[in-house]
Amino acid sequence: MLKIFGVPFSVNVNKVRYTANYIGLDYELIKVDILKGEQKSQEFLAVNPAGKVPVMVDDNFILFESMAISRYLASRHRSELYPEDLKKRARVDQWIDFCSIHLQMALNRIFFNRIIAPKIGIPKDEETLNAGLKLVEQFIPVLEGQLEKNEFVSGGFPSLSDTNLLAILDPVEAMGLNINRYPNLYQWFQNLKKEDFYTKCHLDYAETLKDLG
Amino acid sequence: MLKIFGVPFSVNVNKVRYTANYIGLDYELIKVDILKGEQKSQEFLAVNPAGKVPVMVDDNFILFESMAISRYLASRHRSELYPEDLKKRARVDQWIDFCSIHLQMALNRIFFNRIIAPKIGIPKDEETLNAGLKLVEQFIPVLEGQLEKNEFVSGGFPSLSDTNLLAILDPVEAMGLNINRYPNLYQWFQNLKKEDFYTKCHLDYAETLKDLG
Repeated sequence: MLKIFGVPFSVNVNKVRYTANYIGLDYELIKVDILKGEQKSQEFLAVNPAGKVPVMVDDNFILFESMAISRYLASRHRSELYPEDLKKRARVDQWIDFCSIHLQMALNRIFFNRIIAPKIGIPKDEETLNAGLKLVEQFIPVLEGQLEKNEFVSGGFPSLSDTNLLAILDPVEAMGLNINRYPNLYQWFQNLKKEDFYTKCHLDYAETLKDLG
Repeated sequence: MLKIFGVPFSVNVNKVRYTANYIGLDYELIKVDILKGEQKSQEFLAVNPAGKVPVMVDDNFILFESMAISRYLASRHRSELYPEDLKKRARVDQWIDFCSIHLQMALNRIFFNRIIAPKIGIPKDEETLNAGLKLVEQFIPVLEGQLEKNEFVSGGFPSLSDTNLLAILDPVEAMGLNINRYPNLYQWFQNLKKEDFYTKCHLDYAETLKDLG
């Protein structure tokens, strides 16, 4: 059976889980205690030398990086989430990278300083936190503009850019950010969180986050 | 004719240029003065609401995000750089994201604080700089391990993961980092910089960087 190594509160692991659920795949989620550093163990590094989750094992094929895994699963199962049409696919790739590289990196700064740092007893870095908040204010309106014109992130069809962004936005409420100010993004977010592919993972992401301890 | 908006010293613009040159495409490079903030002008934002270079215009198709553009160009022209085989392609996607998300984000912290900040008269942030240096020490050995076993980043074939990493590593010398310590990575780097697709852009990237002023 398809195996996914990770934890349910990880944004990057959830990108893969939402995608796999959407496609309708059975898989085993194998827990890796990232807060205890299990991803840096010799055993895990032999699977993924980058020491990060998620890792996918499909038969003997081992793959890491969440959106490489998501692209692979969608392509292998010919899912509508990753259209074969050249331009549609390019648009999906564009929004995946916009969200994963720019928005997520900005949110990571907030997530780390507001959620992880207090849990592991590290002082928060106000400068990094503020830089993250400023970047989020720059990137979120771009997505709001896109969702004002389109039902989904890459146009009129659900895609990997939606499962990707959904996982990225999961922790925003817990981080103290309010996306209600962006009505189209907020509506898109609420709509997707009602879907089976999401509720199979969590009814409420904030509850899952409590497992952090 | 294919148009690429950007500047020759931009890592992300060069990812696209190396890819387009490798494929053998003619294109026009349209300069956008990013140090003067031209990418935030109303005119440019109408093309790319994210306010970033590169942007590609192919007939009327507008696309942003460097690796979305690179994937599009390679797919459109059926280049070997982006193999159609499912697992080979997944491997390329994996190494693209490993380099673009983890390594490049770490290098960006160093590039900004050591090169851009002094040029635009902003004090450097030592904490961010040191965090970047520490992450680079963590990620570069992963690539060295990969290139010890393989001629190219994703295996025995040149791919978008090579044009991507090549552009990412271009500024390392100017940043005061020494990759000689990693013999396989260093050899791969030197080999690729002799290729036409590279020398068509610059004989020496450090010279190009001097255009920064």
